[in-house]
Amino acid sequence: MTKNLYVCLTPALIPLYKVEDYTVVIIDIFRATSSICYGIENGAEAIIPVSEVEECAAYREKGTGYLLAAERNGEVVAGFDFGNSPFSYTPEKVAGKTVVLTTTNGTHALHLSRSAKQVLIGSFLNITSLCNYLKKHEGNILLVCAGWQNNFNLEDTLFAGAVIEQLKHSGYTLDDPAIAANDLFQIGKNDISKYLGKTSHGERLKKLGIEKDIAFCLQVDLTTAIPVLQGEKLVKLI
Amino acid sequence: MTKNLYVCLTPALIPLYKVEDYTVVIIDIFRATSSICYGIENGAEAIIPVSEVEECAAYREKGTGYLLAAERNGEVVAGFDFGNSPFSYTPEKVAGKTVVLTTTNGTHALHLSRSAKQVLIGSFLNITSLCNYLKKHEGNILLVCAGWQNNFNLEDTLFAGAVIEQLKHSGYTLDDPAIAANDLFQIGKNDISKYLGKTSHGERLKKLGIEKDIAFCLQVDLTTAIPVLQGEKLVKLI
Repeated sequence: MTKNLYVCLTPALIPLYKVEDYTVVIIDIFRATSSICYGIENGAEAIIPVSEVEECAAYREKGTGYLLAAERNGEVVAGFDFGNSPFSYTPEKVAGKTVVLTTTNGTHALHLSRSAKQVLIGSFLNITSLCNYLKKHEGNILLVCAGWQNNFNLEDTLFAGAVIEQLKHSGYTLDDPAIAANDLFQIGKNDISKYLGKTSHGERLKKLGIEKDIAFCLQVDLTTAIPVLQGEKLVKLI
Repeated sequence: MTKNLYVCLTPALIPLYKVEDYTVVIIDIFRATSSICYGIENGAEAIIPVSEVEECAAYREKGTGYLLAAERNGEVVAGFDFGNSPFSYTPEKVAGKTVVLTTTNGTHALHLSRSAKQVLIGSFLNITSLCNYLKKHEGNILLVCAGWQNNFNLEDTLFAGAVIEQLKHSGYTLDDPAIAANDLFQIGKNDISKYLGKTSHGERLKKLGIEKDIAFCLQVDLTTAIPVLQGEKLVKLI
C-alpha cells in the first residue's frame, strides 16, 4: 500500500491537505517545539500552547498548578513565570507542572491540524526517537512547518528534510515540498547552524540575543520523549 | 537603498506580500508562462489568460479576431483552435492574433498580483532577457510561482532560483524562500530535466504524453520578448 510522506511548508497551506488522513508532526524549531520537547522530557505533566499573552494570563485564575510562559521581543512579560527559552524548561522548573506557553506560529499550526489522526511534536532534540516511532507506524505522515508569520522558513523546512532523510527508504511517496525539504537538508546538513545563519530570520534572532537558545535547539537527540496532542494539552506519548 | 528580491512559493501566499510595492514576475513553467513567452515572441498581438473553458468560449461571441486555446487532460477541447502546448504558438498560427488561453494556476497567480507595480511573465525561454531588464530596474521584485493547485512545485521554484542566480550579486535582500529556491537551483542546474523527472508532477505530465512540451519549456534563451500585463491582456513590453 502506498503511504505518503508529505511536507506542508506553512500553516497557510494546511487547508490543501485532508489532515484527517494523516499523522501530523508540528515543527517550530526556533523555539516552540524545541522547548516543548525539552519540557515534556523533563517531566512537565502537560504543556498548553496558546496564541495570546492574555489567553496565557487567564490561566492564573484557574489555579496555582500552572506555570505561565510569555515573551514578547525576547523579554519575559512582567508577571509571568518565564519566557520561551528552552533553558526555562529544566526538570527543576517544570517537573510535575503544567506549562501554558505563548507561541504564535506553533499554536496556529496546531489548531489547524487538530483533526489529524494524531498530532506529534518534533524538533532536532527528539528527532531519532520521533523517526523510530514513525517508522513503526502505518499510514500517511504530514510534516507541518509552523514557519514565520504564515510564510516559509528555512529552519523548519530543513528539519522536515532531516526527518525525511531518516524515513525515505521506508517506501513512502514524497510530494514536491518533501523532495525540496530533503534536498535543502543535503545542502545544510554538515553545518546546519552556519547554513541557517545566512537567513534573515537568523539575523533577527541574533538581534534578540538568543544565540544560546538557537544553538540549544539545533542539538540532535538530546531527548527521547515524543509530545502528543490530547485535547488542548500536549502530553508525553512515549 | 535596500531592494528586496523575494519569492512567493504559491498563489496561496500572495496575500502575505504587499504586491503594490513590487514588480511581480509570474512563473508557470509547465506550460502557461512558457507558451505565453513563445506566443508573444512570435508576434501574437496579445494573450488573454482566463481560468475556465466557458470563459474562453465566450470570446467566440466577441468577434473573429480571437484564437481560442483550451485543453483538459492533455486534449484540445472540441470546438477550440488549439491547446496549451507551446508548439501551438508558432508565428504561422499566432502572428497578429489575440489568443485567449485557458490556464488555472497561472491565471490565479496573475489575478492575485494585479495591483503590483508591473506584472511580467517569465520562463526559461526568456530568462536572460527578463533578468537583464530586471537588473536595470530599480525597486523590489517578487517572483510568484503559480505552483500546482495552490501548492508548491519544484519546476516553478527552480526557475525562481535561476532568476536569483542572475540577480543575486546586484545588492538585493533575499527572503528565506528566495534562498531556498536558489539553493535548489544549485542542486538541479546541471540537468534540470533529470532533476524534475523525480517529482510526482513530472510523472503526471509524462502520462499526459507531453514530454516534448516539457523539453521545449526547459530550453534557455530561445526568446527575448518580455510579456507584460496591461489591463486583462498580456502584451509585449520589449
